[in-house]
Amino acid sequence: MMGGDLDTRARDELFINVNPIQAAGRLTPEAMKAMISYGDGYSTCDWCSKPFRLDKIDKPPIAEFHSDLEDFTGMEEVRLVPGARRGFESVVSTVIDEDDVVLISQLAHNTEFLSVEKAGGEAREIPVNEDNIHTASATKEKIEKVKEEMGELPKLIMVDHIDYIYGNRHEVEKISEVAHDYDIPVLLDCAYSLGVLPVDGKELGADFLIGSGHKSMASPAPSGILAANGRWADKVFRTSNIEGDVTGRSFGSKEVEMLGCTLMGSNTFAMMASFPEVKERVQNWDEELEKVGYLVEEFLKIEGNKILSEMPRKHTTVKVDTRESFDKIAKNHDRRGYFFYDELKERGIIGISPGATRTWKMNSFGLTWNQIEHLAEAFKDIARKYDLPVED
Amino acid sequence: MMGGDLDTRARDELFINVNPIQAAGRLTPEAMKAMISYGDGYSTCDWCSKPFRLDKIDKPPIAEFHSDLEDFTGMEEVRLVPGARRGFESVVSTVIDEDDVVLISQLAHNTEFLSVEKAGGEAREIPVNEDNIHTASATKEKIEKVKEEMGELPKLIMVDHIDYIYGNRHEVEKISEVAHDYDIPVLLDCAYSLGVLPVDGKELGADFLIGSGHKSMASPAPSGILAANGRWADKVFRTSNIEGDVTGRSFGSKEVEMLGCTLMGSNTFAMMASFPEVKERVQNWDEELEKVGYLVEEFLKIEGNKILSEMPRKHTTVKVDTRESFDKIAKNHDRRGYFFYDELKERGIIGISPGATRTWKMNSFGLTWNQIEHLAEAFKDIARKYDLPVED
Repeated sequence: MMGGDLDTRARDELFINVNPIQAAGRLTPEAMKAMISYGDGYSTCDWCSKPFRLDKIDKPPIAEFHSDLEDFTGMEEVRLVPGARRGFESVVSTVIDEDDVVLISQLAHNTEFLSVEKAGGEAREIPVNEDNIHTASATKEKIEKVKEEMGELPKLIMVDHIDYIYGNRHEVEKISEVAHDYDIPVLLDCAYSLGVLPVDGKELGADFLIGSGHKSMASPAPSGILAANGRWADKVFRTSNIEGDVTGRSFGSKEVEMLGCTLMGSNTFAMMASFPEVKERVQNWDEELEKVGYLVEEFLKIEGNKILSEMPRKHTTVKVDTRESFDKIAKNHDRRGYFFYDELKERGIIGISPGATRTWKMNSFGLTWNQIEHLAEAFKDIARKYDLPVED
Repeated sequence: MMGGDLDTRARDELFINVNPIQAAGRLTPEAMKAMISYGDGYSTCDWCSKPFRLDKIDKPPIAEFHSDLEDFTGMEEVRLVPGARRGFESVVSTVIDEDDVVLISQLAHNTEFLSVEKAGGEAREIPVNEDNIHTASATKEKIEKVKEEMGELPKLIMVDHIDYIYGNRHEVEKISEVAHDYDIPVLLDCAYSLGVLPVDGKELGADFLIGSGHKSMASPAPSGILAANGRWADKVFRTSNIEGDVTGRSFGSKEVEMLGCTLMGSNTFAMMASFPEVKERVQNWDEELEKVGYLVEEFLKIEGNKILSEMPRKHTTVKVDTRESFDKIAKNHDRRGYFFYDELKERGIIGISPGATRTWKMNSFGLTWNQIEHLAEAFKDIARKYDLPVED
């Protein structure tokens, strides 16, 4: 128990945690150490000197980290932001005027909607196909539809590299081509990809690229990155030209959308401390896919289980449908859907939404082969316990 | 040495740190523990349920913390934000339209300017008086001037409770009265007050009140609070009414300016963990003022030293002028102004801008009487070493 009636938390210490949003954000030991050493908010500022900007600080090597991130993302300019949503907000605020249309995917996260709403714009959804894939052809169709209805093109297209609902991989490269044919910039949301799998912003055709520290870069919240290329970088990272009418003060080095410095203290240093491991782990993505492939194969041996995500899996997040299996048990169980949570917890597994037995998600990222086997066995074991048929 | 070539940091462990922005942001031991336990970004979300909003989470008691903060600030509604500047941004974005005028003090922080610039507004400065105090009469004058020149009233007045340059206490209550006579809302910037001295938003006449976690609430960065009252709370915390044109999705519980949830993980829990001590320490403000009073008195015993902040001190931040004392030594010293930094460091003191010997700032917040005496003695000792006259 600590101050303010806080219990200690020991989720990843005691359990296999397959929570879809927590799996790739778990801190590395190095990030933990950085948090202990750099916890004070202004720890980034000890040696800050002209031009007094976070991304220019040489000691500790914050400037170098920014340039490493440029290499890592394949983008020209990178800034840290307090969470991916703040990146969306800065881009939308830069690119659109009131009532302008922004296209987003039918699978877009609510923060994409909210940043459009905050800027006074209109969000229009691009429908996904029958496999829940955001395609280039649907994008083109929607652009034309908006053009016809509104007499104007959309001002921005937000594309999810991997969406948060199914964890599907969308037609990013082709969508970018379509968008660029109309000279519409592309914001690529890599919250579920940057930091877990190889991402090259240039290849993907991103004008803006956004990543989440606490979702996929083994970093504390809030943290993330906003990257941009060419003229779009100049726009979103424009510097201040406001001037005090009494003092004549101006703030030429400060970037307006960043509101000056963005991410101070331990959140920045923990990102830096995790980065060597993050860079390495994206190289092991193929093995992550092998592991989730095995998990899904075993999971499907339970009669009635379905996978709602695209197959074969291109991401470790999996949306499943157990209405014809575990949910049938839940209907007659004293604890209703919570029986499934209880059974998993008893087997050392946590992170699946408590009470969920209909459609739900898990993320196998970062589990060892032993843990994957244990997880697959746990599902089958629970099935057998309640007499659901399980293939050998 | 940790990952990514990071050295460990041990400033407050090894030194008396009088850095003006670091003194009141130093983590408490309880906050440190919370960071270790809750470092993972989505640790706030373990038990999140409907309506899926940070300020409504009961377990751990995040909702209760919000209501404690409402009591603590004397404001009706409080939200956590990733730093005070994000609070400014949300308020300005809510209150003004393009080209509207926002009044700020001549001593305003650059993030106040930047939030106005980001929203497309015009910032106009209210001149301070000869004692560097932002007064009600100057506010009234500037409102009238804007009205005359632009044919419209300013839409918002930002007032610094304690400014960052001198640490002076401004005529907040009277300024609020003037503003309200014109029906202009007041944003009160308490970055340097909330968490170190008693603050009552209602008494001060704030419509919006902003605090900084990493500046004055013993919390990691970025962290802060945005509080609001009455109709202004309804506006700045308005919920979403955007809707997906394909899916019909809507996000009724999400607050647009907050972009959904605001501050997750250890930054929130560290704020909570420090809060009991923060609540207590604001009750000891009189003793903090006694200590800075003593420090300033001793400091002035060195011939040529001047205090640029208002006297007697109403805040622990002090701006001083040593052009007629330490700067005269610097002119003939091999290390120039850095001699002063070296001499202080040798005496276990850190946090004064390296190289500064002309006008500079320090903050005595949180130092014990022993440390205060050591600090005062160090200044005098350095003076004597270089033959500056020191009064007995």
